[in-house]
Amino acid sequence: MSIFDEELRNLKERILKMGLLVEAAIRDSIKSLVDRDPDLAGEVIKRDHQINALDVEIDEECIRLLAIRQPKAGDLRFITTAMKITTDLERMGDLAEDICERAIELNEEPPLKPYIDIPRMAEIAQGMLIDVLDAFVRKDTSVAYDVIHRDDEVDNLTVQIFNELVFFMIQDPRAVSRAVKITYIAKYLERIADHATNIAEMVVYMVEGRMIRHTEAK
Amino acid sequence: MSIFDEELRNLKERILKMGLLVEAAIRDSIKSLVDRDPDLAGEVIKRDHQINALDVEIDEECIRLLAIRQPKAGDLRFITTAMKITTDLERMGDLAEDICERAIELNEEPPLKPYIDIPRMAEIAQGMLIDVLDAFVRKDTSVAYDVIHRDDEVDNLTVQIFNELVFFMIQDPRAVSRAVKITYIAKYLERIADHATNIAEMVVYMVEGRMIRHTEAK
Repeated sequence: MSIFDEELRNLKERILKMGLLVEAAIRDSIKSLVDRDPDLAGEVIKRDHQINALDVEIDEECIRLLAIRQPKAGDLRFITTAMKITTDLERMGDLAEDICERAIELNEEPPLKPYIDIPRMAEIAQGMLIDVLDAFVRKDTSVAYDVIHRDDEVDNLTVQIFNELVFFMIQDPRAVSRAVKITYIAKYLERIADHATNIAEMVVYMVEGRMIRHTEAK
Repeated sequence: MSIFDEELRNLKERILKMGLLVEAAIRDSIKSLVDRDPDLAGEVIKRDHQINALDVEIDEECIRLLAIRQPKAGDLRFITTAMKITTDLERMGDLAEDICERAIELNEEPPLKPYIDIPRMAEIAQGMLIDVLDAFVRKDTSVAYDVIHRDDEVDNLTVQIFNELVFFMIQDPRAVSRAVKITYIAKYLERIADHATNIAEMVVYMVEGRMIRHTEAK
């Protein structure tokens, strides 16, 4: 194995590590919401700097590899894609923080209703994240296409949650502020799934050399 | 001027062109909302493919320059930053489309109230976009920092709009569905401003070699 191969393997590992930190942040943000645990929410927010640090580290390593290894073709595309993917991962981490902030606020008021669709949405989004990272490191477009298709499920759940909460708000004006915050959490999860979908589109682009859009993949 | 200098100049021009298309999309999306003009909203949605095409074109050109020019130091960072910036611009274009979709829906119902804060938010966000592109092509961090600071204004307006609309919803249950859609538009504009802020952070990183976060720049 050449030094460059070793460096690429190391790069992949760091991206996976970053992805797992983001996945844990999403999982714990939803756990803090469901369990009404503001301490856990605070922990997730505190941990975000680890994700940000990895973003910078990976970016620097990619710049270094571009400068000294002058990669061509597939390796070049892999490295430039890695730089973009970490930007998406970093923003997913920020969205987990946003969920935590809403969870802390919601915890200060009585519960509106048990959470059922939000944890389901989160589970799908987490699965999309794990799978798309796998698709990236293994350059597997079939997994990437599968992730893109799952985004529709998340979009449908967002609409369903929205309609249900509008119903709550119409029934009881005292529910409005809490209900809007819950629709925001649904929106954050939708955006997390969108980031996973964007990464999947980049993986297809990296491997097949053509840019697909979510709407076309349907 | 060397061929490479010429190529870099051409790259900058294409990024500015893409940025202006995105700015026009945001402006027209808000115009379609305020003027209750669904045809204009439809036009913006139709035009989005131009933004997507430029995204792919610029990306390909950056890959080509990395492969054949083997840029170093400042030029290398400029090109990798360009690749990331176009991803942000493309997503800002998608958000303008989202605004148009909500504008079309809102147009099918009676108006809730005159729009005042939403156009103000849009104006700030558009200004941030124009200025951050200028900061990028001129490598001017003082303009980039200024953009980052303006993001707080947008965040404050989002909270203000949210509170006002919650008040509407509490007063009149029939307003709920429309009011929630308007809070979504505020959220889309907030995200557009966030993208401009992200680009500003990348410009600082490109020039100063250090990653700042919105919260630290305050």
